[in-house]
Amino acid sequence: MSVPLSFSVYGLSTPLITVGNDITAITAKAAEEAAGGFADGDILVLAESPLATAEGRIIRLSDVVPSARANALAQEYSIDVRLAEIVLQESDEIVGGVPGYLLARRGNLFLPNAGIDESNAPDGMVTLLPENPDASAARVRAEIKERYGKDVAVLVIDSRTHAMRLGVSGVAIGVAGIRPITDERGKKDLFGHELQVTRRAVADGLASAAELLMGEADECTPAVLIRGYQYQKA
Amino acid sequence: MSVPLSFSVYGLSTPLITVGNDITAITAKAAEEAAGGFADGDILVLAESPLATAEGRIIRLSDVVPSARANALAQEYSIDVRLAEIVLQESDEIVGGVPGYLLARRGNLFLPNAGIDESNAPDGMVTLLPENPDASAARVRAEIKERYGKDVAVLVIDSRTHAMRLGVSGVAIGVAGIRPITDERGKKDLFGHELQVTRRAVADGLASAAELLMGEADECTPAVLIRGYQYQKA
Repeated sequence: MSVPLSFSVYGLSTPLITVGNDITAITAKAAEEAAGGFADGDILVLAESPLATAEGRIIRLSDVVPSARANALAQEYSIDVRLAEIVLQESDEIVGGVPGYLLARRGNLFLPNAGIDESNAPDGMVTLLPENPDASAARVRAEIKERYGKDVAVLVIDSRTHAMRLGVSGVAIGVAGIRPITDERGKKDLFGHELQVTRRAVADGLASAAELLMGEADECTPAVLIRGYQYQKA
Repeated sequence: MSVPLSFSVYGLSTPLITVGNDITAITAKAAEEAAGGFADGDILVLAESPLATAEGRIIRLSDVVPSARANALAQEYSIDVRLAEIVLQESDEIVGGVPGYLLARRGNLFLPNAGIDESNAPDGMVTLLPENPDASAARVRAEIKERYGKDVAVLVIDSRTHAMRLGVSGVAIGVAGIRPITDERGKKDLFGHELQVTRRAVADGLASAAELLMGEADECTPAVLIRGYQYQKA
């Protein structure tokens, strides 16, 4: 038997994040309070919405001029015409919809309303996804290294529903400093058989663990620190 | 700001689980070593495969007599004809397949090969899913209460792939003592808007957190203890 493994998950409580905030400094302060500050090997998990807000990825609906295509989609799927226009701008393709939501493809992801979030945004505003979540994760990771001298992996996460499951859970949409998928193929099972197909969604597992403390409503826990989890660096 | 929230996740290392083992006693001993024993409010997370093994849900392939339908499916999808027969017996319906796997409906779940596991089973044997994972969870929960006097929620979990995501993550297939889905509808977001659709898959999140320590290969960590997570009791 090997050494028992364990890890800890700390919710980082912060003031409300607004446009232009220094998310690295804010989470560092919260990490200080919750867990004595960052440590080498920690994983910092950031919710996409406050991160996008800090990065200025927030739009006033009244500033949007809808196109003819947005008008048609808004009619067909009963959504705000200006929201439809933003979804169009943020998507590579609209592949369908249900009342209230357009189903948008963005790269290799299919996202309701292109991931645009009307909750946790000020009245009349919507929050877009971070423009490049991997780049955001890498930036925060570099800032932590530079300012605090610690090697911290960073995940940017979002909430998703999954096929055949009720309720949302976390998925990683941006990653820095950690291998998001662990390949177990070639490893042996308990009886020496070689595993053929198993790859583990480590980053999504960490996202789901973090999301348990984040809340979806007014908790103001935009970030989570995971300590003690042995991950493969990248 | 509220009190910072945190929880801890402990991998429970055990000897290899075999048919007829007392899974409650085995995990209690491992919990003693990893975390000083069970405590009120803990969540015990059990992997389905060792639990099913302890419950005797394991079949020798050479004992299986394949039907004509199993022969046809085995040819069509290139799988062992005896495995095809067991999948048929364990399913409500076969809805399709890919080479190596039948896609089976069992209740409201769609499962590759009906959830039957060839890895982590002795040569020539396969592990079925627990017959009633909710009942298994309830039994272990009751045994912990009776023997150790502690109020511990129990989850039985499995690994699944999710649409559009690479790699497996955890889902709860049996639950006792905890509300698996938290309904956030009616709660207010940071700006006072009412959340319309959000339900949180708390049990799946806990399953994914636990699975980070369980491994898929030869780790022999068939259970995980989660401590400090504030959940809604059921």
